[in-house]
Amino acid sequence: MAFEGGDGAGKSTQARLLADALRAEGHEVLLTREPGGTEIGEKLRGLVLEHGHGEIDPRTEALIFAAARAAHVAQSIRPALDRGAVVITDRYIGSSVVYQGVARGLGAPEVRALNAWATEGLWPDVTVVLDVDEGEGRARRTAGRGEEDRLESEPDDFHRSVRRAFLDLAAADPSACLVLDAARAPEDLAAEVLGRVRAALAAPAAAGGAPA
Amino acid sequence: MAFEGGDGAGKSTQARLLADALRAEGHEVLLTREPGGTEIGEKLRGLVLEHGHGEIDPRTEALIFAAARAAHVAQSIRPALDRGAVVITDRYIGSSVVYQGVARGLGAPEVRALNAWATEGLWPDVTVVLDVDEGEGRARRTAGRGEEDRLESEPDDFHRSVRRAFLDLAAADPSACLVLDAARAPEDLAAEVLGRVRAALAAPAAAGGAPA
Repeated sequence: MAFEGGDGAGKSTQARLLADALRAEGHEVLLTREPGGTEIGEKLRGLVLEHGHGEIDPRTEALIFAAARAAHVAQSIRPALDRGAVVITDRYIGSSVVYQGVARGLGAPEVRALNAWATEGLWPDVTVVLDVDEGEGRARRTAGRGEEDRLESEPDDFHRSVRRAFLDLAAADPSACLVLDAARAPEDLAAEVLGRVRAALAAPAAAGGAPA
Repeated sequence: MAFEGGDGAGKSTQARLLADALRAEGHEVLLTREPGGTEIGEKLRGLVLEHGHGEIDPRTEALIFAAARAAHVAQSIRPALDRGAVVITDRYIGSSVVYQGVARGLGAPEVRALNAWATEGLWPDVTVVLDVDEGEGRARRTAGRGEEDRLESEPDDFHRSVRRAFLDLAAADPSACLVLDAARAPEDLAAEVLGRVRAALAAPAAAGGAPA
């Protein structure tokens, strides 16, 4: 399953809480994040998120994220699914559709198709969108660290367009997506996420493999 | 225009000779190479060609090359074409179709489509394929340097498949491609290439922009 949403929404906290809960129930869990999750992926992550690697146009940005994702799926996610683990990823294809497809204007269907090719069509069974107000997101993500990365430091209307696009993404596939208000208490959110993932694990669709 | 062909075919020598000849005739020339040609592209080139950046599966490799190419076109090739320069590139989309599409087995049409998206459909008016025997290619490329990069160090049957695929590529589009035996004298090859490029520059098709 994948957590999606703007920066500062609390995705990594919720991903960790879910991993802890599933492990306590006896599941093997791969807890991972994008971009990254592999050696080459972490290097690509550095190129695209750090300042100072020269101009990066939107198409190049989308292709670098897709490259990191292809490595992530081939080297880490698919092997984990094949051995029956539950995979929890902090960001996945939805983030590329939203950031590069919508906010950068490359087109959501084009970026979706690019990533379908990169991952050989691997989609999450459950996607949780943590919906965060763009001002609140900025306050949260700078509170702990002070400095913003190349995407985080985009202006507020970029983040507003990102928020809207995550909600549209969820609305387009309501049976696979759960939208939660990121301002709620973390333990309440965690309980609701766990319930949804438990249901997916018990469903016949999950019989052929744990959710990605 | 693009030079294509296996490693050790003499592409960079011919590219330089052509650039010198066209400059002597008064043309502005952008002489460039792939992967690379931009700051982000050179960093991507390092990740994919140097040994030691972790496992790189074929899909990730194809996406990294496409990312470097997208930057190259957006930041360097299109601006040069727009100001009327002749662009000479040492490798272009043909190399990805051959190396990742055919030799790595991802499929030539899929890799072609990926790169059409990356470049917004920018194809060279002229492609010169320098055809080199795989044994001769290896001898030439190690003579000067001793060490081979991640792709060059693939076994001989990889390079045989690459050679065959470059010939197939040229055969599929004979009006835009010129195949030359790389074993001929460099000055003879240069004269034939210059004649072909001069013809393309004079043709009505080139009126809307110099060949890429």
